[in-house]
Amino acid sequence: MMSDSNAQATPSIQICRIMRPDDANIVGNVHGGTILKMIEEAGCIIGTRHCNTQRGMCFSGSDVDDDRCVAALARVERTDFLYPMFIGEVAHVSAEITYTSKHSVEVQVNVLSENIVTGAKKWTNKATLWYVPLSLQNVAKIIEVPPIEYSSPEQEEAGKKRYEAQKLERLETKERNGEVITHVSLPEPYTVGFSQSSLIHLVCPSDCTLHGFVHGGVTMKLMDEVAGIVAARHCKTNIVTASVDAINFHRKIKKGCVITVSGRMTFTSNKSMEIEVFVDADPLVEAEKGKYRAVTAFFTYISLDMDNKPLPVPPLKLEGEEEQKRFEEGKARYLQNKAKRLADKAQQQ
Amino acid sequence: MMSDSNAQATPSIQICRIMRPDDANIVGNVHGGTILKMIEEAGCIIGTRHCNTQRGMCFSGSDVDDDRCVAALARVERTDFLYPMFIGEVAHVSAEITYTSKHSVEVQVNVLSENIVTGAKKWTNKATLWYVPLSLQNVAKIIEVPPIEYSSPEQEEAGKKRYEAQKLERLETKERNGEVITHVSLPEPYTVGFSQSSLIHLVCPSDCTLHGFVHGGVTMKLMDEVAGIVAARHCKTNIVTASVDAINFHRKIKKGCVITVSGRMTFTSNKSMEIEVFVDADPLVEAEKGKYRAVTAFFTYISLDMDNKPLPVPPLKLEGEEEQKRFEEGKARYLQNKAKRLADKAQQQ
Amino acid sequence: MMSDSNAQATPSIQICRIMRPDDANIVGNVHGGTILKMIEEAGCIIGTRHCNTQRGMCFSGSDVDDDRCVAALARVERTDFLYPMFIGEVAHVSAEITYTSKHSVEVQVNVLSENIVTGAKKWTNKATLWYVPLSLQNVAKIIEVPPIEYSSPEQEEAGKKRYEAQKLERLETKERNGEVITHVSLPEPYTVGFSQSSLIHLVCPSDCTLHGFVHGGVTMKLMDEVAGIVAARHCKTNIVTASVDAINFHRKIKKGCVITVSGRMTFTSNKSMEIEVFVDADPLVEAEKGKYRAVTAFFTYISLDMDNKPLPVPPLKLEGEEEQKRFEEGKARYLQNKAKRLADKAQQQ
Repeated sequence: MMSDSNAQATPSIQICRIMRPDDANIVGNVHGGTILKMIEEAGCIIGTRHCNTQRGMCFSGSDVDDDRCVAALARVERTDFLYPMFIGEVAHVSAEITYTSKHSVEVQVNVLSENIVTGAKKWTNKATLWYVPLSLQNVAKIIEVPPIEYSSPEQEEAGKKRYEAQKLERLETKERNGEVITHVSLPEPYTVGFSQSSLIHLVCPSDCTLHGFVHGGVTMKLMDEVAGIVAARHCKTNIVTASVDAINFHRKIKKGCVITVSGRMTFTSNKSMEIEVFVDADPLVEAEKGKYRAVTAFFTYISLDMDNKPLPVPPLKLEGEEEQKRFEEGKARYLQNKAKRLADKAQQQ
Repeated sequence: MMSDSNAQATPSIQICRIMRPDDANIVGNVHGGTILKMIEEAGCIIGTRHCNTQRGMCFSGSDVDDDRCVAALARVERTDFLYPMFIGEVAHVSAEITYTSKHSVEVQVNVLSENIVTGAKKWTNKATLWYVPLSLQNVAKIIEVPPIEYSSPEQEEAGKKRYEAQKLERLETKERNGEVITHVSLPEPYTVGFSQSSLIHLVCPSDCTLHGFVHGGVTMKLMDEVAGIVAARHCKTNIVTASVDAINFHRKIKKGCVITVSGRMTFTSNKSMEIEVFVDADPLVEAEKGKYRAVTAFFTYISLDMDNKPLPVPPLKLEGEEEQKRFEEGKARYLQNKAKRLADKAQQQ
Repeated sequence: MMSDSNAQATPSIQICRIMRPDDANIVGNVHGGTILKMIEEAGCIIGTRHCNTQRGMCFSGSDVDDDRCVAALARVERTDFLYPMFIGEVAHVSAEITYTSKHSVEVQVNVLSENIVTGAKKWTNKATLWYVPLSLQNVAKIIEVPPIEYSSPEQEEAGKKRYEAQKLERLETKERNGEVITHVSLPEPYTVGFSQSSLIHLVCPSDCTLHGFVHGGVTMKLMDEVAGIVAARHCKTNIVTASVDAINFHRKIKKGCVITVSGRMTFTSNKSMEIEVFVDADPLVEAEKGKYRAVTAFFTYISLDMDNKPLPVPPLKLEGEEEQKRFEEGKARYLQNKAKRLADKAQQQ
């Protein structure tokens, strides 16, 4: 059924890329996550390509089989990292389809690091990924996978065993996870606890000045990101930054630090929300120095409808004296800014 | 002292860039953080350029004043976002030095959005930033700022007032922040609580497939990032990913979700650490759906010395029965993998 | 016809940005591809802005001419890289419309590197780009370009000559065919097979224009990346882009495609290497459409020592008639460019 030319065209792919400073930690070791992302990109390309071959060719004139799909990752088998990779090396990721069931594709991936200056090469990873083709028209629909050709019946048999084994394991973990999910209890909507959020960010070279200190703009971008998530969690609509209070940068943040950015809602008016954002820096490897607060600021957000007109904001539910006190302080800032805006306007007229 | 040509050369700069999908939220509004980052880049360029003019020129033949510097952001005044900007528009950021004290530079920045298709233009932001020039040789040293020329004595006077006002405010917040810092109490080193970490990530278009679902590789990269931070916090050394256990992707994560990725250490052997990582997805604006657990996995990390040889790992301090139970489970996985590796080796020989 | 205010508003734009670690190789030289991408962004902004001026204004009350457009890159003339740029420097890219035909726009771009610490400035590039305005409603439709005003009839005449010359060349250059097949066994050093490389990139939203087509600058950046890997593999030293031959963009590349970029060395002189680069686009989910060649180009690289002085390049070992023929063609291009440079120099004196 499958023509020779197809059989040759589909089964393998090679991706390569130079490892850049932002792909690695400060001593130059490439993050495992960078490699995992490349592995998955190769798998997604080859899986998607394979599952779309034969689409629309089989039954000309009929529209039955004309459904396009994208391969979605269902499972990654245990993966070992044999050697660290370094900045400036080229990572070669080669992927091959090694088994197909009716509704899934097994992709095996090998990663080779090449030092293009010395010529040294090392196999650093092997990975096995399982993909499922989802229809582009209806994402809940899984499409049939065209079969591949095997070089021998033994090869097919071994693939089938791997398929059965992973299927079993997936079912088991699904049940196990089921339990865990029910444990996730959340605070009541519209409380401070409900929307509060925080992120950590490992400072990378592109975040830094020539001194090796984080650009203030990079810190502000992360602060706005957290504040935006707090605001969106609170009102579940399209939100935009309306203003940022004065921010002081008292302490510098150095390359190699981990930044923790935390936000909590402090005040709501009819049409605005105030979010307090904290930035803490943790100089990971210099243990004695410890974590310190680098920056704090207040962001004000508004909620917009489809025509970019402001929407009412659900009032913040306060719990305890601390939250009440912060709300009052936020209200004072709000009224002060409002008065200032009116004064500015009057002056202009 | 300052020639006219210098006076003209230093005071202003223009930056512009097309707004891309990754700069905006799902309805196309550009993030405030994207704008703040561009504003600060413009300020840093003009501040650094200005503070290095006259370096090495003043007293030719002498090496006294040959210290180069980079302008570090000290403060941003309150900033309003007047209109939202959209994908495809060009953001024009123009910055100008408006005041210099002995050790600081005031930069005023205006942001204009231009729709290059309709020709519509809007002023969207005004910002005022204060920079301090830090020596490249000794980052603790603040360098003297060359004076700018003012168009009138009134202009200089007004700048001086702004300078005094912000100086006062900075001192006040420094004291206030001082209090806050002492409140940061941390769990005991080597406990699970000490190293556990989590991050949130707002899914952006480049993270997604054609369906609008997050690529598995993007999720794995974030998981590795969190696991790496947990490992680094625990052992304060250079750490690298050694292996990842099988990962199942039971539930898809959609564009516009916020992903929370959390990691906690579960087990340590002599030379390795096991970190459990959870991925929760929160479909922000679709409130009824609620947060759900999308993925979980175990990452194993090792710690490396300067020659990339494994270092001993400090043992994990366990608190409570839960942690003890997870440690035993981790130990079982560790022993099982070790046995499997040995069996594989034996088979190969 | 065209009002003065329009004439002043349209013809020029300036883009600038600090060069970051990820923009450069490990010794800090900024990739040629980073510069090419900035050049194209400036060209796209000014081209799109110009082609949309007068839209909807010409015939008030009529809706005939209300078709908006985006400028798509059609061709880049030969571009020389005069000096390498470094991390921490600011790249200033200024673009100006210098000629318009009925359906195309010529943009001339100058790139200046500024060391904001020492104050040193250098002109590093000049480039000429041709854009064609494609309708946003119907991407197959090319829109009429509003004319610019020329300062003199001679200026217009010279522009027309450049226009005719490039038009002729575009027609002549047919798609070059060639395929880079990665060898399983490792070829001998200094052969074509030894250094040839390819990379694969899954097009993401941020790579694309409002039409959903890949920005020419994104493609050129990938091409430079592959050419750089080929050059580094060949000579195992620090290499930088010296020039790019004229590039024609015959076919557009759409969102969701996989781009394969392949490079092979075609010619070496004493101090330079010529690398041929192919870009193939594969519309993954539309398998029947098949892979097609979107762009081809020749990049010239030089090898630099620690002081940024050119190093001798190991001669390319040729195998077979094909390689011999390509080498001769490369030599002809090299001699022609050399002759042109000498002629330009003589003319300037």
